[in-house]
Amino acid sequence: MATSTTKTGAPLDRATFESLLRRRLFYTPAFEIYGGEKGLFDYGPPGCALQNNLVDIWRKHFVLEEDMLEVDCTQITPAAVFKTSGHVDKFADWMCKDPKSGEIFRADHLVEQVLEARLKGDKEARGQTVEIDQAKDAKRRKKKVKDVQAVQLDDAIVKEYEETLAKIDNYGGEELGQLIKKFDIKSPETGVDLEPPRAFNLMFQVTIGPSASTPNGYLRPETAQGQFLNFQKLLEFNQQSMPFASASIGKSFRNEISPRSGLLRVREFLMAEIEHFVDPESGKRHPRFAQVKDTKMTLLNRNVQLEGSTKAEELTIGEAVASKLVDNETLGYFLARIQMFLLRLGVDYSKLRFRQHMANEMAHYAADCWDAELRTSFGWIECVGCADRSAFDLTVHRNKTGASLFVRETRAEPLRIEEYQVDIDKKRFGPKFKKDAKAVEQAVEALNQELREKMSLELEKEGRITLDVPAVGNGRVELEKDLVKIEKRTRVEHVREYTPNVIEPSFGIGRILYCLIEHVYWSRPEDDARGVLSFPPPVAPTKVLLVPLSGSDELRPYLQQLTYKLRRMGISSKIDDSSASIGKRYSRNDELGTPLGITVDFQTVKDNTVTLRDRDTTSQVRASEEEICAAAKAIVDGEETWEDVAKRLPKFEGQEVD
Amino acid sequence: MATSTTKTGAPLDRATFESLLRRRLFYTPAFEIYGGEKGLFDYGPPGCALQNNLVDIWRKHFVLEEDMLEVDCTQITPAAVFKTSGHVDKFADWMCKDPKSGEIFRADHLVEQVLEARLKGDKEARGQTVEIDQAKDAKRRKKKVKDVQAVQLDDAIVKEYEETLAKIDNYGGEELGQLIKKFDIKSPETGVDLEPPRAFNLMFQVTIGPSASTPNGYLRPETAQGQFLNFQKLLEFNQQSMPFASASIGKSFRNEISPRSGLLRVREFLMAEIEHFVDPESGKRHPRFAQVKDTKMTLLNRNVQLEGSTKAEELTIGEAVASKLVDNETLGYFLARIQMFLLRLGVDYSKLRFRQHMANEMAHYAADCWDAELRTSFGWIECVGCADRSAFDLTVHRNKTGASLFVRETRAEPLRIEEYQVDIDKKRFGPKFKKDAKAVEQAVEALNQELREKMSLELEKEGRITLDVPAVGNGRVELEKDLVKIEKRTRVEHVREYTPNVIEPSFGIGRILYCLIEHVYWSRPEDDARGVLSFPPPVAPTKVLLVPLSGSDELRPYLQQLTYKLRRMGISSKIDDSSASIGKRYSRNDELGTPLGITVDFQTVKDNTVTLRDRDTTSQVRASEEEICAAAKAIVDGEETWEDVAKRLPKFEGQEVD
Repeated sequence: MATSTTKTGAPLDRATFESLLRRRLFYTPAFEIYGGEKGLFDYGPPGCALQNNLVDIWRKHFVLEEDMLEVDCTQITPAAVFKTSGHVDKFADWMCKDPKSGEIFRADHLVEQVLEARLKGDKEARGQTVEIDQAKDAKRRKKKVKDVQAVQLDDAIVKEYEETLAKIDNYGGEELGQLIKKFDIKSPETGVDLEPPRAFNLMFQVTIGPSASTPNGYLRPETAQGQFLNFQKLLEFNQQSMPFASASIGKSFRNEISPRSGLLRVREFLMAEIEHFVDPESGKRHPRFAQVKDTKMTLLNRNVQLEGSTKAEELTIGEAVASKLVDNETLGYFLARIQMFLLRLGVDYSKLRFRQHMANEMAHYAADCWDAELRTSFGWIECVGCADRSAFDLTVHRNKTGASLFVRETRAEPLRIEEYQVDIDKKRFGPKFKKDAKAVEQAVEALNQELREKMSLELEKEGRITLDVPAVGNGRVELEKDLVKIEKRTRVEHVREYTPNVIEPSFGIGRILYCLIEHVYWSRPEDDARGVLSFPPPVAPTKVLLVPLSGSDELRPYLQQLTYKLRRMGISSKIDDSSASIGKRYSRNDELGTPLGITVDFQTVKDNTVTLRDRDTTSQVRASEEEICAAAKAIVDGEETWEDVAKRLPKFEGQEVD
Repeated sequence: MATSTTKTGAPLDRATFESLLRRRLFYTPAFEIYGGEKGLFDYGPPGCALQNNLVDIWRKHFVLEEDMLEVDCTQITPAAVFKTSGHVDKFADWMCKDPKSGEIFRADHLVEQVLEARLKGDKEARGQTVEIDQAKDAKRRKKKVKDVQAVQLDDAIVKEYEETLAKIDNYGGEELGQLIKKFDIKSPETGVDLEPPRAFNLMFQVTIGPSASTPNGYLRPETAQGQFLNFQKLLEFNQQSMPFASASIGKSFRNEISPRSGLLRVREFLMAEIEHFVDPESGKRHPRFAQVKDTKMTLLNRNVQLEGSTKAEELTIGEAVASKLVDNETLGYFLARIQMFLLRLGVDYSKLRFRQHMANEMAHYAADCWDAELRTSFGWIECVGCADRSAFDLTVHRNKTGASLFVRETRAEPLRIEEYQVDIDKKRFGPKFKKDAKAVEQAVEALNQELREKMSLELEKEGRITLDVPAVGNGRVELEKDLVKIEKRTRVEHVREYTPNVIEPSFGIGRILYCLIEHVYWSRPEDDARGVLSFPPPVAPTKVLLVPLSGSDELRPYLQQLTYKLRRMGISSKIDDSSASIGKRYSRNDELGTPLGITVDFQTVKDNTVTLRDRDTTSQVRASEEEICAAAKAIVDGEETWEDVAKRLPKFEGQEVD
């Protein structure tokens, strides 16, 4: 069992945890009254508020602080774009169909699952301990295999299975089909032979407009392409100044073969993506790298993984870049900024690591890639990818469309290039070669520097050169020095033209949201049926719960006034004037993660004081309404902690006892 | 010509206006480098920031101030949902294909356009003045008709054309086909006969999952259905308390036959929708109606429109509800709140009206509907709909799925119902009727109150009754009074069950965004090539422009410090340190709608003072950095106006002269 713990280190029981999320409507399977649709979820009020806060903090942390150019591009995308980007050909998984039941299996997951089950049975038969890597298991979202049978295998077969599993991400469809035959893998449901694997593209197709008879577009699987296509306009908006970054927050789609694990593998999801465009010749240095270089991070590098280990090491990002473990400053800068963002949300540092992709694991466009992974009851979950996409996308779109997806830059120092140049005497060329003149001229122009140098010497020495012109005469043409001159000269280049490289931090907001909730979840020892979600105040869906001690009409105006006052201060609050006890109302809101509670009671009517309760400690202070509102604001804005407030305002003990 | 004016009342030249929007990258046709795709647009940085601000203000104005339950539901929706909601059958337009060119026309628009052109030609031939209602024209987004020919028509034909046009929204596909034949309407492009009209459903189809061989889902055309499907969960989240509202902000899709008019008719758009659930027996009163009742509004009612007029009247919403022009308080409350929202954004009150839908114009689910329309160079544009959807959606989904989409409410006063009840003596019934016993029993139970009353008297008088039971014997059964008793008794009902009605304010964010930009656009008389966008400070994409007087290194630290200080205050700023003159840099930012400019010059180095410039008046003040930042914050938060600031800080005259 992967050990998965609550915020306070107790074992995390996923069933209890998920029941809290359902009970409090953080999210819910979509279309449940219609029987539901796998991989689609709706966010209820607390989930939606939480998502809005994550997006808001993301925008402040990245777009505003880094002066990025945020764009909002359409989800519906013409097919040609994804043909060029490679998604039409490569963004696919292999699937096998059970011809009897019609059920569909992801081919690589099926092979993996069956071989692992057999190896497990073998270990059992040999009387060895069976360790289950629950993390790995969950990530692969397997179909359940029928009971593992304790059957011992030949040593050679064990070895073959293990080698196959180690390379499972490398197989194409044909190879997977061969493995299925070779290892006699049948449908886990019906036991019959499966149909051969076929590619299933993970993009949803759409038909744009009334005239197309077949689909001519896709729902985007990432927000990136819209940013690339607008590169030239963004560069101009940025007054031709490099480097710069664009950013985009929006829905993307993947038609998963078999969605599993709640919010972790879904068909429609919110992404936040940054495309940082950088000059490849700049060494990808970053001007603010010095500000982050001492940030300690947990890094799991490629080589350690190749050795079959998952031992991560903690070092500063400065050290990691200096040792070339992380390729360049820009990549390192973003890794550090990603970590700061996640910690700001309330992610547990001890459950965060950055894992480098292995070469065969990267997306088809990536030159290097690190994932920020968060540890949960489903194992380590990739929540943010940070890839160096090199110049791939801008180059392919430029080649396809001819659009100016590059930078033209006046050189600070003009570039002086020494080179051999060719002069042709056109007046003599025509009469001499007649209809072949053009072909001969082209052959001369096409000579590379090396040949030009050689021929220049020859021309000087022999007074003539001979070169291949296949279409003319016997394929060899002789030129005398009155027809052609080849000289070494200096050319001065004032403008430089280059295609920027792209560093792409890409955030799965739904995954971060789910993992964060696991990280802040715990229960009080005295009441383990009820959970507490300790979101940092800026992240919490609602900031303040307002509770009247009783339903008395006398208290109502004070609640209205508090609501109004807090709203003016930009603090969201909710009144709970239900008939449940104060204690019950507070614990309901502990489950919603509301950090503060203000209680209005009959003392309030006398002296206008109210109490303020802290979610995490359940301790309370009492002071004037004005002081309490100011304290709430200081906590919500992160300017004071509860400890600060508890020190300076009088402690209150009383209501929680009901 | 529809007169369309700038903020300052000058004629609005749309070409100049649109060139500003393109130049400043508010939005751009999507996929332009791939030849573009009609009806799809990308928002560049200023458009995206503007959209974010609209959404943010919307959320504060509605969700937070009214304590709504915001949800985020998926866009991909199983087909069954829209089958039930009626969209599969009814959410369609009729289209005709030109068999020669393959071009597709919207049938109603084509008939309309051809008849109007003929009527225009007739008027010309009769020497009458031709008025073009550009507004109407633009709204219908017509294909261009070939030159209008001045041909006089028979008076009878003129009348027939006019009658047809008046009813154009009422025709189905077959009727449109007949009209096309009768009036000899050909393809405007090739002159050939068109194919008969066929329905084109405006929803995009998608195929969810790998097993379906045909599309089994749609992209939602509105966000409403997700809210309805979650009704029961939301009611529970709201602790069973009614009334309440849910809200949702997200993309929706319509596969327009022929998208036109820029952002006004697009295939993918951002919506913000509210579903306010209310007890139909409450008279749809609203507790906060008193707060808005004196709001003056421009209303164009249904009867005026039926008389062929567009004369709106200004009255308070209190008067409109009192006179039943607006059906109920809740509808009236939302109309007033919608107006407040629009005015808060900077919409021009004189270019805003609320138009009531005519009966035949409403969506298939609506019981009443008012549109907030904004006047632009395209005419009056529907930007917000406010419909009373009655209990339509909850009822159809409940009927289809059996889900509890209703409210169960303990009655404050138990309801006492006087009614005739039937008691059957089951012991005697069985032996007497044997296999027919059940059928006879059911026939007795099925008697309505009227028949029960009649039979009760008969039983008392005759000692027996006779009733129809078609399946038994000769179809008539006689019952004596030892077998059945019918008595008037009182039943007490403690719980009431009802399906809420829904008031739905529905906002097209992209349309509002476009119309708003037209409303705040103007140019200075001395520089009419350049525009100014006078967004209110909270709405403006960027709040403060920071300009150094020169590129001197001396000034740079002051800019950094200002950026940092303003960010801490929550104010977005941009530095423009390009080499253009101060005047040019300011006017560039006038086009981006940046309300304030702070200039750092060599005086700053001496005494740490900076200047603050107002976009609308171009006047400036000079004070210490601290005072200027505080003034900027007061203006951005709406606590002070420029006039206030200009009064209390020293005027500055100087830099703008370059």
